[in-house]
Parts: sequence; C-alpha cells; structure tokens
Amino acid sequence: MPAVTPDQYPQFMRVSAHEQALKSLSEGGIPIGAAIVHLPTGDVLARGHNQRVQMGSNIRHGETDALENLGRVPEGLLRECAMVTTLSPCFMCSGTCLLYKIPLIILGENDNFVGGEDLVRSHGVEVVNLKDEAVTKMMTDWIASPNGQKIWNEDIGEVTVKA
Amino acid sequence: MPAVTPDQYPQFMRVSAHEQALKSLSEGGIPIGAAIVHLPTGDVLARGHNQRVQMGSNIRHGETDALENLGRVPEGLLRECAMVTTLSPCFMCSGTCLLYKIPLIILGENDNFVGGEDLVRSHGVEVVNLKDEAVTKMMTDWIASPNGQKIWNEDIGEVTVKA
Repeated sequence: MPAVTPDQYPQFMRVSAHEQALKSLSEGGIPIGAAIVHLPTGDVLARGHNQRVQMGSNIRHGETDALENLGRVPEGLLRECAMVTTLSPCFMCSGTCLLYKIPLIILGENDNFVGGEDLVRSHGVEVVNLKDEAVTKMMTDWIASPNGQKIWNEDIGEVTVKA
Repeated sequence: MPAVTPDQYPQFMRVSAHEQALKSLSEGGIPIGAAIVHLPTGDVLARGHNQRVQMGSNIRHGETDALENLGRVPEGLLRECAMVTTLSPCFMCSGTCLLYKIPLIILGENDNFVGGEDLVRSHGVEVVNLKDEAVTKMMTDWIASPNGQKIWNEDIGEVTVKA
C-alpha cells in the first residue's frame, strides 16, 4: 500500500505537524500539531493543533483536532493513513488511532511526554519516533515558559505539585 | 469521597445519559449519550451526545462531547467524577477517561458494543454495567434501522461487509 516511504517522514513532520504546532504557539496555545497523511498517495488530508487555550477544549489535542478538521470520510480511509504528530500521543489520542485502525503513528519526540505507545503497539500499530531536535526543543522551551507547566499538566490530566 | 451511592446510578443514567441519547436520536443522530457526574456532590457537571451526524464529527462521541461541553475545569476535578454513558466506551473514549483519570465509568449496556472496558479496568478504573433494558433496546433498534448499521460502522471504525 504505502507509496510514502520512511525517508519522507521528516518532511511530513516539518511541513505539517511542526508547522501546526508553531501556529498554535503563535496563538498562545500549546505547541502540539498533527497531520493525517494518506499513505498510498502522500496527500496530507488534514492538519490540526492543540486547542485547549484557543477553544477551551478538553478533547482537541493535535491528533484529534486534525481528525475533526478532516470531517467524515469514506469508511476504511483512515486504515490507509498515518498520524503524524509532534509528541507521543496521550491515551485519548492513542485510543483514537486504535478506534479508526490507523496503522502508523509518526511522532516527533517522546522526551517531553510518553503516552500510549505501548498500547497502540500491542494492537499492531507501527510507531516511528523521529527524535526531532527542533520539535523537542520547541516543547521543552514552552513547558519551561511562564504558566507552561500548569497548562501542560491540565492537558495531560496531571495535578500541579504545590511547592 | 463519593456522596453518590450505587443506588443512584440508574437515575443518573435515565435523566442524563439516556435523555441525551434520545435527544440525539430525535435529531437524526446516533443515540449515544453521556454525562459527567461529580461524585462528592452528585452534581451533573455536563452532558453530551454523539455528534457524528449532527456536526460531521469524528471525535464527538457521547463521552467526549460531554467533556467538550464541560469546558476547562480546575485541575484534578475529573478525578472526582464518574462518566455515565449509555454504551460501553470505545477505545477513544476509554483512553480519554484514562487521560483525565476518571475513576468510575457507569455504562448502560455492552450488548451492542464492547469497547475498552478491559483497558480501563487494567488501569484501576471501576466499571459498572447497569444492563439497562430500555437503553439496550434503543441502540439495538437504531442499528437495525435504515442506514443504521452503516453509520454505526463508521462511528466505530468498522467497514461495512458487502453482501
């Protein structure tokens, strides 16, 4: 099936997921972006980014925002797609990939967060970590920014430890 | 913590999740509804229903729609809440409950679909199946209705088997 080859993964990360993360950052939001790439054609079908700050959303992470922007599609289409995301997908987004039987997740990094990688792998999903330095630094810097850790904790269901 | 007691679960199902499912059905949508109940107070904080047909949504299932309707809340609040849902939660919604560390899922039935119950239980979430006959019949009848099976398959990532 795949016309897309692994040497193209970094380009998809750069021009779709990373770009969306930077867009979110420029809006004052959490810098996580994602894109849905149709593997037989290489078409980027949809892109999205975290919308917690911008839309007050609990469910629009990068991956789910891309899926929402995609809209309804012919059945089985997502089985031919990769989810490209700047960060290791949380349990919600991992479960979403399982729901739609997305066979490949390409992630920018998992230094800043490790989500449901083991879960999706246990269901046969291929996970490729690009260990992208620019993407990693973007997220690390944002978490260290004023209020970054607090908003980040909210996004991943954690509670800020009181000093 | 819980002021809510198990004898109240059927009432929460009836006046929140089931009611939302019937609302969705009346709109021509998939009849799955959910509610988020604050366990220490018994307050219904938010309600929602599947929005695939109404909004063309891939990510607004009953549970996630309720979460989106809830909006941003103080950190840790969802750790004190139950997710009340008419149907066994799919992997997306199960993962969402894990993300926000929701400790209790009250479901109406799992005769029509079994989602990520084992997954959430393996993370310590309590799952209570009310085996609600009215809720079960509502879903069974809808799936058997014209186009029901096809839209349902789309909602759970399945592919309609060609006759």
